[in-house]
Amino acid sequence: MFTIGIDLGGTNIVAAVVNGSYKIVSKAKRPTAMPRTADEIFDDIAQVCREAVDSAGITFEDVEWIGMGTPGTVNTEGVIEYANNLGFDHIYAKTMLSERLGIDNIFVENDANCAALGEAYAGSGHGSKDFVAVTLGTGVGTGIIQGGKIVAGVNNAGGECGHMVIVVDGEPCTCGRKGCWEAYASATALINQTKAAMEENPESIMHQLAEEEGKVSGRTAFDAMRRNDSAGIKVVDQYIKYVACGITNLVNALQPEIICIGGGICNEGETLLRPIRRYVESERYSVYSKVQTLVVKADLGNDAGIIGAALLGLAK
Amino acid sequence: MFTIGIDLGGTNIVAAVVNGSYKIVSKAKRPTAMPRTADEIFDDIAQVCREAVDSAGITFEDVEWIGMGTPGTVNTEGVIEYANNLGFDHIYAKTMLSERLGIDNIFVENDANCAALGEAYAGSGHGSKDFVAVTLGTGVGTGIIQGGKIVAGVNNAGGECGHMVIVVDGEPCTCGRKGCWEAYASATALINQTKAAMEENPESIMHQLAEEEGKVSGRTAFDAMRRNDSAGIKVVDQYIKYVACGITNLVNALQPEIICIGGGICNEGETLLRPIRRYVESERYSVYSKVQTLVVKADLGNDAGIIGAALLGLAK
Repeated sequence: MFTIGIDLGGTNIVAAVVNGSYKIVSKAKRPTAMPRTADEIFDDIAQVCREAVDSAGITFEDVEWIGMGTPGTVNTEGVIEYANNLGFDHIYAKTMLSERLGIDNIFVENDANCAALGEAYAGSGHGSKDFVAVTLGTGVGTGIIQGGKIVAGVNNAGGECGHMVIVVDGEPCTCGRKGCWEAYASATALINQTKAAMEENPESIMHQLAEEEGKVSGRTAFDAMRRNDSAGIKVVDQYIKYVACGITNLVNALQPEIICIGGGICNEGETLLRPIRRYVESERYSVYSKVQTLVVKADLGNDAGIIGAALLGLAK
Repeated sequence: MFTIGIDLGGTNIVAAVVNGSYKIVSKAKRPTAMPRTADEIFDDIAQVCREAVDSAGITFEDVEWIGMGTPGTVNTEGVIEYANNLGFDHIYAKTMLSERLGIDNIFVENDANCAALGEAYAGSGHGSKDFVAVTLGTGVGTGIIQGGKIVAGVNNAGGECGHMVIVVDGEPCTCGRKGCWEAYASATALINQTKAAMEENPESIMHQLAEEEGKVSGRTAFDAMRRNDSAGIKVVDQYIKYVACGITNLVNALQPEIICIGGGICNEGETLLRPIRRYVESERYSVYSKVQTLVVKADLGNDAGIIGAALLGLAK
């Protein structure tokens, strides 16, 4: 059995043929080259699908279904209702792809949900049916899998746990709320927290580290911590506390088998994960349970979304 | 088809026979009369089941299954792992009930989850499959229904959304965390907020209202607000903001069809619900969705748990 997964992003369109063991057997890619019309973009999406199929040495008759991950909100009819960074407003994605490829069996889903599905089935979830994927990036993206299915909610807009408030009246969030988890636990937030600490601590080694790297990044405070810089240690401790606070919230609400954490910050590995686990262990409500949620690093990196898209037929 | 629902509480043991239309056809009740041994309590549970069956004019042969709701954490084998207010530590509830009544088809579940199930299938959910029940009482109890099933998590301890932090480093919570939703949005929290405002505002009418009622209650600030007392208005506005903050968090995470709010505070009806809906509408992430989560008042009152227990066979 083969399926096709498509990852439609603001920068690239990627398609992959995925086999029955959830492995990528071929991949094709083109730049999204914004701004373009939806018709132009979907012409290219169809083309990268053809290229992926060719390079896998199969035909479209071997393809059971096509799944596409896209930014924004997708409704149950496969219409992208709104995708800010693609300039999409009610784009009939499923129909447009079906017309171009002559295939009816097409699923369209939010890209963060696809990534969660990929990690659950084929990555750090090892087939787990109750799973949450958290990505610490520009924002905090999350996807929830329950009973092996994506929790999309009544309007397919579910799974936005980054926009759960953890500090009432706190830092402003891009979504309009104040105090969202994203405003404290994203890489963007970490960089802001690092900059604020640098301003308060002119003696901190973080100034030198930022100068060497040419910018303040998500690594600056972690690198300073490794050099025993007290301001850096404080930033990292506080940031990890924010991340772990939201993770514990998810544990208390859902008690999934596994929560995976992905995104650039996760390159810190156990430096990040060990204190998060310690915090969760000390704060979770399920103190008396023998079985507990595992907190692990995401496995699939950038392939999570495309593999998850290819698996949509299993989880819709 | 008939089933039996049992509500085991710290004060009373109630059993009801429920019919295929999810209606209670008979009910029996005894005091839990703590402290007693688990064996004594289960003797009485079996006895109230017999009484409910008798008064329904049926026999146990007409009973398809028995469901029991209990405080505390229950594992998948029907063992109550821990229930603080019953003094239960690893009580084999399913086995003990099965031995006494000669019935194998028995389900045991946390009582808040039962109440959510009852509301989803037979109450304010009108059969909704994606549903959250929130109870504003001594604590903030929640139960999550996804795809018609209880979200129990890997250890059956899921659905504790009252213990999601909304104020990092905020008010201490009974669970050990600081800043839980429960510490701001429970009836207990409202009473504390009312008392603090009374102390700060000796001229407030809340002093007179509390004296008339003999205590500060969850109604004091609402009654003062209705008399245009500025301190009372402030307490109510702030409390509603805390409640709505957590409700919006749940909307953003799960986008359920319906969230119902129950508990004594809900007697305020639209006085409470209207501003909560307004807050949710202005803060939810799903601004572009045509379909949105409905926020409604719980329907079944104290019967939610017992009806939900009787329906466990549908949702496990």
